[in-house]
Amino acid sequence: MSNIKNIAVLTSGGDAPGMNAAIRAVVRAGIYNGLNVFGVKRGYDGLVSGDMYAMDVKSVANIIQRGGTILKTARSDEFRTIEGRQKAYENVKAAGIDALVVIGGDGTFTGASKFLEEFDIPIIGLPGTIDNDLAGTDFTIGYDTAINTVIQAVDKIRDTAESHDRLFVIEVMGRDSGLIALRSGISTGAEAVLIPEFNVDYDAIMKRLDKTRKSKSSRIIIVAEGDSEGGMVVSERIKANFPKYDVRLSILGHIQRGGSPTCMDRVLASRLGVAAVEALLEGRKGEMAGLVHGEVQFISFNKAIKHIDSINQDLLRIVEILSL
Amino acid sequence: MSNIKNIAVLTSGGDAPGMNAAIRAVVRAGIYNGLNVFGVKRGYDGLVSGDMYAMDVKSVANIIQRGGTILKTARSDEFRTIEGRQKAYENVKAAGIDALVVIGGDGTFTGASKFLEEFDIPIIGLPGTIDNDLAGTDFTIGYDTAINTVIQAVDKIRDTAESHDRLFVIEVMGRDSGLIALRSGISTGAEAVLIPEFNVDYDAIMKRLDKTRKSKSSRIIIVAEGDSEGGMVVSERIKANFPKYDVRLSILGHIQRGGSPTCMDRVLASRLGVAAVEALLEGRKGEMAGLVHGEVQFISFNKAIKHIDSINQDLLRIVEILSL
Amino acid sequence: MSNIKNIAVLTSGGDAPGMNAAIRAVVRAGIYNGLNVFGVKRGYDGLVSGDMYAMDVKSVANIIQRGGTILKTARSDEFRTIEGRQKAYENVKAAGIDALVVIGGDGTFTGASKFLEEFDIPIIGLPGTIDNDLAGTDFTIGYDTAINTVIQAVDKIRDTAESHDRLFVIEVMGRDSGLIALRSGISTGAEAVLIPEFNVDYDAIMKRLDKTRKSKSSRIIIVAEGDSEGGMVVSERIKANFPKYDVRLSILGHIQRGGSPTCMDRVLASRLGVAAVEALLEGRKGEMAGLVHGEVQFISFNKAIKHIDSINQDLLRIVEILSL
Amino acid sequence: MSNIKNIAVLTSGGDAPGMNAAIRAVVRAGIYNGLNVFGVKRGYDGLVSGDMYAMDVKSVANIIQRGGTILKTARSDEFRTIEGRQKAYENVKAAGIDALVVIGGDGTFTGASKFLEEFDIPIIGLPGTIDNDLAGTDFTIGYDTAINTVIQAVDKIRDTAESHDRLFVIEVMGRDSGLIALRSGISTGAEAVLIPEFNVDYDAIMKRLDKTRKSKSSRIIIVAEGDSEGGMVVSERIKANFPKYDVRLSILGHIQRGGSPTCMDRVLASRLGVAAVEALLEGRKGEMAGLVHGEVQFISFNKAIKHIDSINQDLLRIVEILSL
Repeated sequence: MSNIKNIAVLTSGGDAPGMNAAIRAVVRAGIYNGLNVFGVKRGYDGLVSGDMYAMDVKSVANIIQRGGTILKTARSDEFRTIEGRQKAYENVKAAGIDALVVIGGDGTFTGASKFLEEFDIPIIGLPGTIDNDLAGTDFTIGYDTAINTVIQAVDKIRDTAESHDRLFVIEVMGRDSGLIALRSGISTGAEAVLIPEFNVDYDAIMKRLDKTRKSKSSRIIIVAEGDSEGGMVVSERIKANFPKYDVRLSILGHIQRGGSPTCMDRVLASRLGVAAVEALLEGRKGEMAGLVHGEVQFISFNKAIKHIDSINQDLLRIVEILSL
Repeated sequence: MSNIKNIAVLTSGGDAPGMNAAIRAVVRAGIYNGLNVFGVKRGYDGLVSGDMYAMDVKSVANIIQRGGTILKTARSDEFRTIEGRQKAYENVKAAGIDALVVIGGDGTFTGASKFLEEFDIPIIGLPGTIDNDLAGTDFTIGYDTAINTVIQAVDKIRDTAESHDRLFVIEVMGRDSGLIALRSGISTGAEAVLIPEFNVDYDAIMKRLDKTRKSKSSRIIIVAEGDSEGGMVVSERIKANFPKYDVRLSILGHIQRGGSPTCMDRVLASRLGVAAVEALLEGRKGEMAGLVHGEVQFISFNKAIKHIDSINQDLLRIVEILSL
Repeated sequence: MSNIKNIAVLTSGGDAPGMNAAIRAVVRAGIYNGLNVFGVKRGYDGLVSGDMYAMDVKSVANIIQRGGTILKTARSDEFRTIEGRQKAYENVKAAGIDALVVIGGDGTFTGASKFLEEFDIPIIGLPGTIDNDLAGTDFTIGYDTAINTVIQAVDKIRDTAESHDRLFVIEVMGRDSGLIALRSGISTGAEAVLIPEFNVDYDAIMKRLDKTRKSKSSRIIIVAEGDSEGGMVVSERIKANFPKYDVRLSILGHIQRGGSPTCMDRVLASRLGVAAVEALLEGRKGEMAGLVHGEVQFISFNKAIKHIDSINQDLLRIVEILSL
Repeated sequence: MSNIKNIAVLTSGGDAPGMNAAIRAVVRAGIYNGLNVFGVKRGYDGLVSGDMYAMDVKSVANIIQRGGTILKTARSDEFRTIEGRQKAYENVKAAGIDALVVIGGDGTFTGASKFLEEFDIPIIGLPGTIDNDLAGTDFTIGYDTAINTVIQAVDKIRDTAESHDRLFVIEVMGRDSGLIALRSGISTGAEAVLIPEFNVDYDAIMKRLDKTRKSKSSRIIIVAEGDSEGGMVVSERIKANFPKYDVRLSILGHIQRGGSPTCMDRVLASRLGVAAVEALLEGRKGEMAGLVHGEVQFISFNKAIKHIDSINQDLLRIVEILSL
């Protein structure tokens, strides 16, 4: 039997839709298993300052459909120092907390890894980030919602592009990963997709645009924010190269983070939240729960953050074929 | 080299969001590979009556985001007869069509299987149905959109349930499969989910509802339409068993079929549409293209329709844990 | 100067999107004007049972965008009796409440009118109902959201109707008023609209449908639930009269009540909530605040509930012209 | 009796949701009244180049719910010259067109006014612009949709603002008018709204923000793009003035133009489209059809474009009261 009686949950890093569904699952699965569950405010900052409170079934009622995180989130400079983590540990002990569930991205797991190593607190992580840039899970919590927000925005812009025969360069999220750009590009019938993983071949784009000049009246080029050039530069270059097109730039920005989570994100968060609690009770620690091919799996924090974004070549090929 | 020069595409059975994205992908991938592509109207009916037309790149412009199917769909009684299929074959030959892509569900593939057997026309199928009831693919085209439509509707009903302290019985689609009910139940924090795969245990539900009488003010029970009793009977029984609750019934009905497809359905349809054309060119036939663990795979029509809906026990457990 | 120091706010009758925005406006305008504001739970029931609590600025933070009502709502049988209202009065006095803001529809104002008459408590009403069936305001809070929910649902059903060449009979809310049906019918290009204010002329509908048999493939007939026959009967009659059409029925039901309010409902609720508080401070009572031609106006409760739904003939004419 | 037998319709200026609903209404009302209706492509450019085509009932089927304009739109330099207008007149005469309906904003009506004056072609205008900056109508076609798009975007951003305790400066459309900013600010609970009609009082904003530092964790400041400073400058100034806040800027941009029109925009467009055709048949010309207090009214082009945006002081007051 497990010695764990009290656990705490926190969200850290950028907020992602589905974080609330994950918090709810952790709290309810904890109570279901006879545990007391504490909520920590503002990520590791709340651990350092001791800002936490006892949660019950009602604390998480009616939040599964809400964007953001009711526990709030932050990036904590103090927790990056040994002094900060020492304070955090004292607060954890003072509250009688035996184990932690941390919801966030690579920064979150890096911190968790150190904390666990130094103070031997069992910690399980949940992948909560719109960037889908973690190993050990097919999708991160928030990614499916973010990409659907992107395509709904691009659909709206396509109305204008089509009405005015314009070319729109649209910058979407993805600092290190082109996956949001690539999948949203396929979904919105983009004529080209520029991603950090590959250099822009302006000649190829130019040829493709020229080839379809007669069959198409509007054009969408999706650029990942992490692309070597970024939306602003890309739109300037296209203006310079294609003086015949009426080029506009749209940077989607912060709207991509919020909103009510999709079914996939809610189910993913619910399954992983339950799995995290059960994993702690089974004695696991230092691992992230993920969903791989429909099944819950665990991966060490160190491996989770060493995600190599291997862009599926099939997707790139499809952009080209369908932008015909 | 393939002898295929002309192909035709049709949609059959109930319409599903993403069918247009699939049509677009077949047409463009066909043209990209140097083929002529014909569109057949109203499923097999159009084959029987010879209602088909040549499609070009522009025929499928600006449809990727639209629900329904521009080719229309129907269930064809005539195609179920050998005389009907004979007529269809003559039309296919007269038009010089060498191969077909059919988008639909199990009825569609049963018809395709017979047609291929009798007349040796290469046919590749795409899984287009909101019911997700086909083997050989993790998801069918339309399923992800339908389930998101369901949860958005339930979220709205939850507003009223919560405001009035009511219990809502909500019937969702799924004649043979409880998957839509189960995943939408998890996603909306339903207190119980009734599905065709299991008998209703009213005692257990009654106990669960009683247990949470103090912690919860609203209650949602999701019933799959294929459940042995159906929403109407379930709501009457609950009214009889729980006179203290203010019970209401909502049958979501036809809104679940339409709407702009989600990113997942658009990407799925686009990948499988391209794959179907390439499969025909490689000499495949009598198979459905599906996506399994992120990779395109093929399965024979006969196996695709022998889907056994193995409800993930983990999901059922999660409903119970989280409805605490 | 006003003697009013403490006010209370409640929501009553069916819930409507924008009620939360109205509560928020009453609470903040009260505090802005130096008052204490109490929230009463479950409408008049909360007055009768003394279920109320002090609200502050934070009580209403982050609710403007939410459907339903955080104060909950109910229809109170006890408040319909003099004994019930006597109890309510005692609770009001015990809490030191000097005046009330009640948000609801005609039942709400009928109760308020009696309560004020018997116990001389200043009360101002806000029109909170999706039915738009009150005099003294161009629109009620919730109506604009409900009608937009209706048209989004009908747009989805149109996808299926169009794909299958079907005729859909769609029943929408409106027990006494055909306005939701009429405006949603115009907005969705319905072929006919049946409303309580007029008898159904099946011959005329039949002729209109016949006339457009060639130009149209899908058909939508919108029926107000308060129509003399209702959606079920209408769909049966049309099936009998038009055996050539594939007729389906969809009853939208409860989804029409919930959801995040539109801009119009949020602005309307915010303006009227502020106006209600200022009216009480100016000594008004027994009146409903409404918005007429863009300006706040007040009307006595007795007049507000004597709404005669004068269907704009222009709108009926437009359905016919545009269903060509 | 009118001598008008053939009319043409065009959309000009920036695209706006509801333009398609207006085109549909003009085409169907024309046909209903026995007229032939031509569609002109790309606004006045299509008149100058003679790019127009005969429309029938089916040309406008299934477009009422679509953003953008199927006729496309443009700003025509050539039509600003007398030579351009001369060519346009010759094309109009050659096609036998007796009268025009033009859908757009002030630039559109300025052109129409000149064309009518020089060549005596009867023209009726419809207010199609998201900016709501025309006299003679309470709302322009597209405005209600645009403002709802804005508040849905701000709701999403509020999720992040609330999760991170951030202050967001959000720039919304409105070059000359603060109405979109003001109404969206009220609808989203913005702490401040900066509009072109008034100078920014940073001291007042600073005081208001300081006052609510304890009661609020997130803050939204809405800035109209036409504000003297613009979102970029405002966000820099706030960063400088409030170093304690985590300030972010979001420029909503082009997403505000597209999307499926709201019920109000569809009904407005449908009513005015019918009214425009009937007005031409009654001999009216040189006027814009508008909706004032629920009734169709006509105003001369010269008056329509002399809109003075008289910001309702009541709305400004409400921002302050409710941002408490």
